[in-house]
Amino acid sequence: MKLYDCTTAPSPRRTRIFIAEKGLDIESIQVDLRKGEQFSDEFKKINPRCTVPVLELDDGTTITENIGIACYLEELQPRPALMGQNPAEKADVLSWNSRIEFEGLFAVAESFRNHAKGFKEHALTGPNKITQIPELVMRGRERTQYFFVELDKHLGGSEYICGEQFTLADITAFVTVDFAGWIKLQIDASQVNLKRWFEQVSHRASISG
Amino acid sequence: MKLYDCTTAPSPRRTRIFIAEKGLDIESIQVDLRKGEQFSDEFKKINPRCTVPVLELDDGTTITENIGIACYLEELQPRPALMGQNPAEKADVLSWNSRIEFEGLFAVAESFRNHAKGFKEHALTGPNKITQIPELVMRGRERTQYFFVELDKHLGGSEYICGEQFTLADITAFVTVDFAGWIKLQIDASQVNLKRWFEQVSHRASISG
Repeated sequence: MKLYDCTTAPSPRRTRIFIAEKGLDIESIQVDLRKGEQFSDEFKKINPRCTVPVLELDDGTTITENIGIACYLEELQPRPALMGQNPAEKADVLSWNSRIEFEGLFAVAESFRNHAKGFKEHALTGPNKITQIPELVMRGRERTQYFFVELDKHLGGSEYICGEQFTLADITAFVTVDFAGWIKLQIDASQVNLKRWFEQVSHRASISG
Repeated sequence: MKLYDCTTAPSPRRTRIFIAEKGLDIESIQVDLRKGEQFSDEFKKINPRCTVPVLELDDGTTITENIGIACYLEELQPRPALMGQNPAEKADVLSWNSRIEFEGLFAVAESFRNHAKGFKEHALTGPNKITQIPELVMRGRERTQYFFVELDKHLGGSEYICGEQFTLADITAFVTVDFAGWIKLQIDASQVNLKRWFEQVSHRASISG
């Protein structure tokens, strides 16, 4: 297997943390997003969507989405379980992962990509021209603030996002909260549950190592 | 089990089709989104996110996201398999489902919700105030058009979205393409693969019945 990756970007970071949690060792190929290598004809042959991460299997099959890669690796190497161990847990992890993307990750990206110079015609991922809309800078920021409030409230009730086990949902949320630093949003001092969780997760070997 | 549902809305429709494909019979409770029942204190106790579908299990556990509900029901009733039958297939279904949401479903919703009168302060789902942004009406429409082009191209290579089996990805895509009618977008006559697939899928008992 090979992972098409970019060490500076939040999206493939989710996959890298997942791989590290599984103790897997997968060859990494860097795609320099800041130089626009994802739009090259060469990379479009690997992923016409022009995004990383992409996991390429030994038979040449490519998996181009974080959730697909996580699912594949969870099947390949079930321990430690990162996506739940019974039907209700599995549903909970996928539900939270989806919520965190929609309410958190996409919100930070909305604020960041509609502002940053490098994304003038690429306010959303993908090969198509999507022009920046200045009003989305503030909308994304406000959405992220709502998300922090919700996550803080939720983490008052459990150690990790889906109960007492660290899961994929924590990975997505950790990357999102850290990514929010790019739009100069930090955890508020009053958000003690979120702060406790973030510090705890940031010390895991898969993240700090 | 109980399903909190709204028969006029696209999001719970995905779950209803999934349930019908499984041959399951689940009690349905209507939440009238047009009357704003999702924002009532009563419904907020069931789902503080103020969205449907919600699957409530017999022990009171609630699953609030389409992907979580699908995962739970697939575990409960594995046949017919709607989420793949081996690691690569499972990854492919989840990847496509995620792509179809991001590139298609959210794009149609973006165009529709930033225009329709009923959504003036709810341009995104959820309890928070999100004011309409007129530029997103056209952006969502253009993104949907890109999505139709991509899906048509992809369906030139296989009967269904993930190969020769009907899956969750087809459900999400079907609901998305049908929902695009709400923004007056139809499949172009030149998109013969998309047209063939849409007609075929629309005749399934889970959809036409």
